[in-house]
Amino acid sequence: MHFTSETSSNGVLERTFLVNDVPGVLWSPEPGSAVTPLLLLGHSGGMHKRAPGLVATALHGVTTHGFTVAAVDAPGHGDRERSRADRQQVEAIQRARVAREPIAPFVAEHTMSVAERAVPEWRATLDALQTLPEIDAAAPVGYGGMMLGVTTGMMLTASDSRIAAAGFGAVFVNDALMDVARQVTVPVEYRVPWDDEDLDRGAALALFDAVASGEKSLHARSGRCHPAPDHERADSLRFFARHLGQGIGQVFS
Amino acid sequence: MHFTSETSSNGVLERTFLVNDVPGVLWSPEPGSAVTPLLLLGHSGGMHKRAPGLVATALHGVTTHGFTVAAVDAPGHGDRERSRADRQQVEAIQRARVAREPIAPFVAEHTMSVAERAVPEWRATLDALQTLPEIDAAAPVGYGGMMLGVTTGMMLTASDSRIAAAGFGAVFVNDALMDVARQVTVPVEYRVPWDDEDLDRGAALALFDAVASGEKSLHARSGRCHPAPDHERADSLRFFARHLGQGIGQVFS
Repeated sequence: MHFTSETSSNGVLERTFLVNDVPGVLWSPEPGSAVTPLLLLGHSGGMHKRAPGLVATALHGVTTHGFTVAAVDAPGHGDRERSRADRQQVEAIQRARVAREPIAPFVAEHTMSVAERAVPEWRATLDALQTLPEIDAAAPVGYGGMMLGVTTGMMLTASDSRIAAAGFGAVFVNDALMDVARQVTVPVEYRVPWDDEDLDRGAALALFDAVASGEKSLHARSGRCHPAPDHERADSLRFFARHLGQGIGQVFS
Repeated sequence: MHFTSETSSNGVLERTFLVNDVPGVLWSPEPGSAVTPLLLLGHSGGMHKRAPGLVATALHGVTTHGFTVAAVDAPGHGDRERSRADRQQVEAIQRARVAREPIAPFVAEHTMSVAERAVPEWRATLDALQTLPEIDAAAPVGYGGMMLGVTTGMMLTASDSRIAAAGFGAVFVNDALMDVARQVTVPVEYRVPWDDEDLDRGAALALFDAVASGEKSLHARSGRCHPAPDHERADSLRFFARHLGQGIGQVFS
């Protein structure tokens, strides 16, 4: 892992990094804040490590709870080249949208393909982050994501015991994802829009039901996916604070 | 309206009152806190104005948000005589439970009957509360409730424009309640247990769907109705603070 840039603003240190060839961003409290819980954030398909909602969550997480927050570009996203196979899958989604056909099956297929490649990258990134002095390598880690970030995060959570709490947003559900959900056993918070024409409510409820966690909650709100209101962002971060603890030496709101 | 007792503890003034023959409790910040938003809390069937969860919510609302919180005994509950017809309905519920038959139809019928009588009592109580100097009679009022308190609250919210935000918990749903839900248009937060054998998930989702509010959210968590975790209580009170404002001169956590 090496850091490629470093800036600081309003009490938040922002560093870009590379782990192997995967570019990421790390937001953390100013140095001297001692140990800080680690939260990983997964962007949605078509977005990247600096998606506006993701950055807003990261900054709130650092300033309110003293978290260190990491995001990386998924394969074919952000600063990374998109492969020919990925381009073809994205074009299939776009054609379905133009033709006003259901996009869900195309999105779910593409998402699974990207997520399968993203999971080992997240694992390597987490290995690297846990070598940093401000991260307690024995401490529980949180994962939050939307859409592609949900699929990736469920696969990571089901397979990596370091993830101790997961916050998921809307996602296109298919049978493969249902199978992954049945292997998720850590506390889960799942936030879904109630009125999004692209998303199947019944599938969202079935996915929530499939999650094997003893502690899980579903939050549905009227309206579409975007934008999430600020108070939802704050609620989600409180969920992580309950399960990960808070950074030492922070002032909490 | 007249007050029948007054005590004070940990910064919370607690007064009991009568409006006509309906006994109630009012929890408020210590005098001198100027204007304070008003929150009405409706207890569940078989409980009363000092139900433990209700009192915990009331005290948190006063100390954290500067609310004034009121609760009254529903007809046949708490300090009030239960009529012969009510006794017969309660016995029908108990017989069904002992026989391991579904209790929902019996509970829903009894609940509708009690709620129809409770609504005019709440309206008179609200009239009286709005004459108090610490209550701004023009300010929006909140209503929160569980079970019987949901049915009562939905009917009150649908028919009294002073109620500007409503927080509902689990409830037994029937067609009459579905009709009431379609008349509720203020912001609503609806919290349901996901794994309660007495409650029908599908009916809960249908009720949420029927609520006509442009701003509504559903919160389902694994487990049964009781006890609600403290963080849910805090979340619900933040919902009211967003819509009612906060008391003046309070320290907020």
